[in-house]
Amino acid sequence: MPIGVGLEERFYPSRKLLMLPGPTNVPERILHSMIKPMINHRGPEFHELYRRIMEKAGKVFQSDGEIVVLTASGTGGVEAAALNVIKQGDEVVVPVFGEFGNRIVNSVKGAGGKPIRVDAQMGNAPEPSEIEEAFKRAKAAKALFLTYNDTSPGVTYRWLDEASKIAKEHGAFVVVDAISILGGDHLPQDRWNIDLVIAGSQKCLALPPGISLLSVSNELKEYMMENPPTTTIYFDLTRYFKFNEKLETPFTPAIPLFYALDEALTIILEEGLERRIERHMVTAKALYRGLEEAGVKPFVEERVRSNTVIAATYPSGISDAEFRRILNEEYGVVVAGGFGDLKGRIFRVGNMGETNARYVLHTLAAMILALLRLGHDVNYDRVLDAAYEELKPLLSHSG
Amino acid sequence: MPIGVGLEERFYPSRKLLMLPGPTNVPERILHSMIKPMINHRGPEFHELYRRIMEKAGKVFQSDGEIVVLTASGTGGVEAAALNVIKQGDEVVVPVFGEFGNRIVNSVKGAGGKPIRVDAQMGNAPEPSEIEEAFKRAKAAKALFLTYNDTSPGVTYRWLDEASKIAKEHGAFVVVDAISILGGDHLPQDRWNIDLVIAGSQKCLALPPGISLLSVSNELKEYMMENPPTTTIYFDLTRYFKFNEKLETPFTPAIPLFYALDEALTIILEEGLERRIERHMVTAKALYRGLEEAGVKPFVEERVRSNTVIAATYPSGISDAEFRRILNEEYGVVVAGGFGDLKGRIFRVGNMGETNARYVLHTLAAMILALLRLGHDVNYDRVLDAAYEELKPLLSHSG
Repeated sequence: MPIGVGLEERFYPSRKLLMLPGPTNVPERILHSMIKPMINHRGPEFHELYRRIMEKAGKVFQSDGEIVVLTASGTGGVEAAALNVIKQGDEVVVPVFGEFGNRIVNSVKGAGGKPIRVDAQMGNAPEPSEIEEAFKRAKAAKALFLTYNDTSPGVTYRWLDEASKIAKEHGAFVVVDAISILGGDHLPQDRWNIDLVIAGSQKCLALPPGISLLSVSNELKEYMMENPPTTTIYFDLTRYFKFNEKLETPFTPAIPLFYALDEALTIILEEGLERRIERHMVTAKALYRGLEEAGVKPFVEERVRSNTVIAATYPSGISDAEFRRILNEEYGVVVAGGFGDLKGRIFRVGNMGETNARYVLHTLAAMILALLRLGHDVNYDRVLDAAYEELKPLLSHSG
Repeated sequence: MPIGVGLEERFYPSRKLLMLPGPTNVPERILHSMIKPMINHRGPEFHELYRRIMEKAGKVFQSDGEIVVLTASGTGGVEAAALNVIKQGDEVVVPVFGEFGNRIVNSVKGAGGKPIRVDAQMGNAPEPSEIEEAFKRAKAAKALFLTYNDTSPGVTYRWLDEASKIAKEHGAFVVVDAISILGGDHLPQDRWNIDLVIAGSQKCLALPPGISLLSVSNELKEYMMENPPTTTIYFDLTRYFKFNEKLETPFTPAIPLFYALDEALTIILEEGLERRIERHMVTAKALYRGLEEAGVKPFVEERVRSNTVIAATYPSGISDAEFRRILNEEYGVVVAGGFGDLKGRIFRVGNMGETNARYVLHTLAAMILALLRLGHDVNYDRVLDAAYEELKPLLSHSG
């Protein structure tokens, strides 16, 4: 697949390598699946499409829970979760280790709840024991609402299983924002006793943005059905549950994105979920290793580093704007800068969906050239050799 | 363009003629515009795309107001309007003449407002004088929230201009749900003094479903900026206004649908908005006339009949399920049944977007054949001659 400037530029707006924490590169098979004609969203063609989606999505969530597909981006999915789980005055334990934790705090407040924050320093995450303390401090926390992978610092919460156990011991629901990680790292919903998982489309599922998926445990579904939200119709999940029975959505769904979701889920199951996760782990390791060899330090403590978004601290003297401009305009590689306070201090490399050995090597090569141009001393061979070494499991897979 | 069963069936799920009140047929140019690769929604390619969309959308809304594009279907757009206009205890005048009026009542309640209903019999709409009375009954109504075109009975509110004047005289904001009509009938937002118009994608704009557009007057925008909603983040329009300044959306947008919107708006302006509206009027007239010749009576009083959705009452003895099954399975024409109480009594023909003489003639021909099969006496020639007569302005246009 050609990368960077080429003949295709005449037809496409910019065939670039999107190493962003979403949107990510969308495989041709998925893009092309969208150009099918419209169908009646109340007719048999849609029923069959939706049935296939529900069946396959359950396997990707590793759950027997109920699947809901919202026509909204990830933030909409998080808002739907908050409005359907949280009632006026409910205490909710929210570990915060990045921007998306903060957004959950706001969503909890929006739903009338009282967030009990468990903060951590940027680049780290709170220990399960701190979450336990928060539950003890609370009178009767209704839920644990946790970002499994916060893309703003590039942190994955590596003790989700334990945190879920703690919440369950305190009789709380477990709600997990897995927008930027489902399909790219381990998340066995039922085995880890998670009541609600929210996934985004434009991340590890490798779809375009525009829909979000929720998987809801039977216990939480029952609670929701008895306590529907009062301030929203669009995000009222009980309406979606009712329409699920006839394989429909209550409001007109984004049909092209449903076609794309059907294809994306097929691709995931063809590759195999475990193998796909392994691929993300290998490419992540290669990116971390290559950057370290280039003298670019990972921003996040090793034990909570994300495999789906690699955050790295700029060596002194490297300008964020110049570095990313060179990458983008000269080598066709798009990476993200830092969020909020981290702006200018770190950059973030998405490692999601289609990510593979070629993408990683191309990204690292472009970064080395950009760093050299900006006066940072890097040994090209050593960086690529180190990355190549890590990538071997993938290269032997594909022969 | 081939209709019904053909070779294309091997590649497409069902190339049918979608005469639904949304989703509607999407032109190939628009479908194909979606298969461009992903771009960074925080980068220059998106800025340029969004700039083009804003510029063209203003012309279609006929407004200098501010455009917001939500990744959500029309109901999401209505909810966003309610949550941003209405505060706790606000009285809102809501004319109700169909299911979507009822939904507005619920959205008003969800936002904490007190709806003042102005009801009408199904198939009719309340007079402006009744709206005026409602404003007088209210203490200080904050807004008039009106469905310009309610697809459930097929009614267009033909005195929107007058109703808007009345609301303005009472110092109220005017909010119009134009989801199923913008681009298919007259709606000069600024000239009619409308503060907020909500449009859907999968209706007269001929896009796939998945996004909704809002156009907000400067006066209402100022009010919103000073009074942001507290229960929603995703539908907080003040966030969209702020991001508009940098030509971005606050949350990741449905990029393929933005590509499609860009193309759809280009097509509308190429045809010319006035000419497009005229086309909808001509095809609507032909459908009404043809159905009457077939002995199938329009459900709606003439003065408030919709041009974008034609509702007709079944002649006695015709089964809704059978009629629509024959149309769909044997002639590849998909029309809608009735909503709620009207189920089984009426059918509804969408006349939106791509609608043209060929679609109308094909639809009527299929309907005649279905009616004959079901024992209803129809004169084929008379129906098609009558429709053809009405369609002449279009046929002479295209040579």
